[in-house]
Amino acid sequence: MNQLFSLVDHPQRTVIEVQNLRIGEDFIVIAGPCSVETWEQLYETAVAVHQAGANILRGGVFKPRTSPYDFQGLGMRGLNLLRKVAAEVSMPIITEVIDPRDVPWVAEFADILQIGTRNMQNFSLLKEAGRSQRPILLKRGMHSTITEWLNCAEYILAEGNPNVILCERGIRTFERSTRNTLDLSAIPNIRSLTHLPIFVDPSHATGRRDMVLPMSLAALAAGADGLEIEVHAHPEMALCDGEQSLTPEMFGDLMKRIQKLEICIKELS
Amino acid sequence: MNQLFSLVDHPQRTVIEVQNLRIGEDFIVIAGPCSVETWEQLYETAVAVHQAGANILRGGVFKPRTSPYDFQGLGMRGLNLLRKVAAEVSMPIITEVIDPRDVPWVAEFADILQIGTRNMQNFSLLKEAGRSQRPILLKRGMHSTITEWLNCAEYILAEGNPNVILCERGIRTFERSTRNTLDLSAIPNIRSLTHLPIFVDPSHATGRRDMVLPMSLAALAAGADGLEIEVHAHPEMALCDGEQSLTPEMFGDLMKRIQKLEICIKELS
Amino acid sequence: MNQLFSLVDHPQRTVIEVQNLRIGEDFIVIAGPCSVETWEQLYETAVAVHQAGANILRGGVFKPRTSPYDFQGLGMRGLNLLRKVAAEVSMPIITEVIDPRDVPWVAEFADILQIGTRNMQNFSLLKEAGRSQRPILLKRGMHSTITEWLNCAEYILAEGNPNVILCERGIRTFERSTRNTLDLSAIPNIRSLTHLPIFVDPSHATGRRDMVLPMSLAALAAGADGLEIEVHAHPEMALCDGEQSLTPEMFGDLMKRIQKLEICIKELS
Amino acid sequence: MNQLFSLVDHPQRTVIEVQNLRIGEDFIVIAGPCSVETWEQLYETAVAVHQAGANILRGGVFKPRTSPYDFQGLGMRGLNLLRKVAAEVSMPIITEVIDPRDVPWVAEFADILQIGTRNMQNFSLLKEAGRSQRPILLKRGMHSTITEWLNCAEYILAEGNPNVILCERGIRTFERSTRNTLDLSAIPNIRSLTHLPIFVDPSHATGRRDMVLPMSLAALAAGADGLEIEVHAHPEMALCDGEQSLTPEMFGDLMKRIQKLEICIKELS
Repeated sequence: MNQLFSLVDHPQRTVIEVQNLRIGEDFIVIAGPCSVETWEQLYETAVAVHQAGANILRGGVFKPRTSPYDFQGLGMRGLNLLRKVAAEVSMPIITEVIDPRDVPWVAEFADILQIGTRNMQNFSLLKEAGRSQRPILLKRGMHSTITEWLNCAEYILAEGNPNVILCERGIRTFERSTRNTLDLSAIPNIRSLTHLPIFVDPSHATGRRDMVLPMSLAALAAGADGLEIEVHAHPEMALCDGEQSLTPEMFGDLMKRIQKLEICIKELS
Repeated sequence: MNQLFSLVDHPQRTVIEVQNLRIGEDFIVIAGPCSVETWEQLYETAVAVHQAGANILRGGVFKPRTSPYDFQGLGMRGLNLLRKVAAEVSMPIITEVIDPRDVPWVAEFADILQIGTRNMQNFSLLKEAGRSQRPILLKRGMHSTITEWLNCAEYILAEGNPNVILCERGIRTFERSTRNTLDLSAIPNIRSLTHLPIFVDPSHATGRRDMVLPMSLAALAAGADGLEIEVHAHPEMALCDGEQSLTPEMFGDLMKRIQKLEICIKELS
Repeated sequence: MNQLFSLVDHPQRTVIEVQNLRIGEDFIVIAGPCSVETWEQLYETAVAVHQAGANILRGGVFKPRTSPYDFQGLGMRGLNLLRKVAAEVSMPIITEVIDPRDVPWVAEFADILQIGTRNMQNFSLLKEAGRSQRPILLKRGMHSTITEWLNCAEYILAEGNPNVILCERGIRTFERSTRNTLDLSAIPNIRSLTHLPIFVDPSHATGRRDMVLPMSLAALAAGADGLEIEVHAHPEMALCDGEQSLTPEMFGDLMKRIQKLEICIKELS
Repeated sequence: MNQLFSLVDHPQRTVIEVQNLRIGEDFIVIAGPCSVETWEQLYETAVAVHQAGANILRGGVFKPRTSPYDFQGLGMRGLNLLRKVAAEVSMPIITEVIDPRDVPWVAEFADILQIGTRNMQNFSLLKEAGRSQRPILLKRGMHSTITEWLNCAEYILAEGNPNVILCERGIRTFERSTRNTLDLSAIPNIRSLTHLPIFVDPSHATGRRDMVLPMSLAALAAGADGLEIEVHAHPEMALCDGEQSLTPEMFGDLMKRIQKLEICIKELS
């Protein structure tokens, strides 16, 4: 028996519909802050990314942090904020889940659930995500091979949820000038093995604001189906990951170039 | 404020009492099969490791497997088997938990709970483990720095559970002739930073039966507080990780050498 | 004192003139076989890459091979072949040097000298290359940080040779489905630190023919100054690295897309 | 044909005689400073390591340094110093070569030639070393697999020099609290594949003085044939690698423990 992620029995590419978006068909940009902090912060950022052309609003409410004493996210309260702000700008939302017990109720509020790099092999969480009706964006483990990653997607698919989006976000190597090493060869690699859409998160991969634009253009040129980008109205005040967040102005510039490049890339093939 | 794991406010080394064992003071050997399969398999293995001098019986009942179609463990039924067999040989038991919802009930049956490499940064599981009354053996993430590992121990300590055992089990590198690269420098590294006991698992680190003995001796010489070793009465029939399991004979030989070396090492210092 | 590679004292980007090419200003494609084998093989490949629009002909005559019993290259005889074939198609040539004693005489025949990944920190070779009058293409060590790489360029610059081209060719990581992991973030990284041109070698980085096109497009989109690509008239008969060599047809298709994308990328900025 | 390093055609372990030492049979300790600086520095260190029981004196005169502006070693003058000091304490010497042109003349002065981690795949240097009559200590490349390392030994053996000593010195990983990650599993790994002696360099592997003792004991317990350890009479004044050099007192203590453990290890087997 072939695996469900495999192209062998499923040669046509998966298209996931979220509101009026067709993920896997149109090039999609997810944008927003690392974590939901306040109404003002989120609203200002959401309006900016929406005007720039982003398709989906991101915002973390449960933050998997290295230290138990770091900011852990606003939880339910943050999710309510995210929901309300998203309604103002008419954007679908994506948010991360880190505990299998939270999947059912978070799935009622969020349009897409995200499983982060540290939880890629949290099999209980994967199974619970597989029982949810929501699309799942599954980040690559920073220590994971392509094969392991696809097997984790299989955990979700095997529970009956066909809507999995893979997201490359950098792997851990010896190089220290970037947070992780973005593996863009994962794009053709994944496309040769599965029908599932493949996104790229250049913000976490590089950890550096100045590299988000070139890596976004490169991801699009390499065949990615979308991007996930951190944007914060005031990165210098961000409670987490400020150094990798774009300002609204930088994001606006990025979107203009992405849109032009997208047209060009379509003509290439 | 210093972290709870730190030696700064807590210079004396932690000693964890489990039945008549003093973990962190005596050199401890945990042994048993990767996974609980049948009464016969477990009983035969348990008797053998007990006679050879092992202190704690290990056996997995929830197996975090790369593929959803691989053997996933016997669950509750396996835990009952483990409990009964352990009673026959009067050994405490350790078993892995992979879901925060299982921590309370598994803690009723197991003397020590293990958190595996893939779950080292499963913060929900860590917090639940911190609320349990049982000692927790926390394996190093195969992709984790020493600092990240200690911060995960802190998640458990911060919930009020002071009994954390750290266990080095190899990190992921480019080398392919071993399953992972065992980092024995983690032993003096950890001992210079924390009062918590440090164990070594040479079976998973190397993935090779022929390396378990030399790496066990090296771990003891480097200052480890204990070992966790896979033993299977019939490795060729094991449902998982057979190629790294010792036979009872090999384990008996290992224990004799460990006991002699232990005496020698004590005299060195 | 700032280092010679640094942008601080040398903010304008280095442009290296080779025949009528302006490396660092125009987008340059180096193409050819891994190693020079026969007149027919080289001539057929050279004509094909020249017609497709490649700018520089590559061909190895000293092959650094893992085993001493593998094909080690044709040496002087190969260099003569390379020189003659290049004259037929009027292309400048690049070839690798691996021994400091060969630098002076190889520099008489080759337009550009290449220093490979295994020799990035061969300091004797770097110094000899620095005393040559030829431009040097310095590949990144597969185990080297960006900082170490730039320091190796400094060894060449410090001897009085200002014409160094850097070439990212993948770093060694745990991922096994590609030969190395291509680090395209090295492009903006390098551009933020030095005025030297930065090329990308997608053939050695991925080791897979099917990934050369998408990684080439991505490199261009990320801001690379050029590409080095393996092409072989008959890859299935290549004495080395056949599985990563493009056929002339594949290379022709790649060049068409690269040329279109190049126009688009110029309009973006 | 089997490779020359292989145990298949050569099951008996290689023993290399240097003066009255039998490398591969007796446990050997190489000690001395990272680099030869002055007569006083070298003499004071040599007397100390000799009295403590070291067998071979080390000292670098060509230093492969990351930056061209760092101290590069004393060259010929340093070699003369090393030779004279060694005569005073009647110890054989080992020194590193980094340029194939230096091999013949350095081999006249040094008892053993060392090839460092950055030059493991410098094939010209390996071949020249193979033509020398001196034993060669070949360090593992920090990025090299066991297989690649043995193939580099084969380059030396294939030239007719049977006296190769392998030396594990740490591999490059993501862990940042040590300079490299010491891979002690390389010891049984190498012993299962070749008859050549295997040494360990805990100084460069960890980069930390406090880890040299525990890693030395572990290397001996794991089956190493010898150690190479950095000792400096005044580490705080060393021109390179001071932070990993032992003081003479620390080295004296290490040697006492090593000698006791050696007796114990012999009794184990």
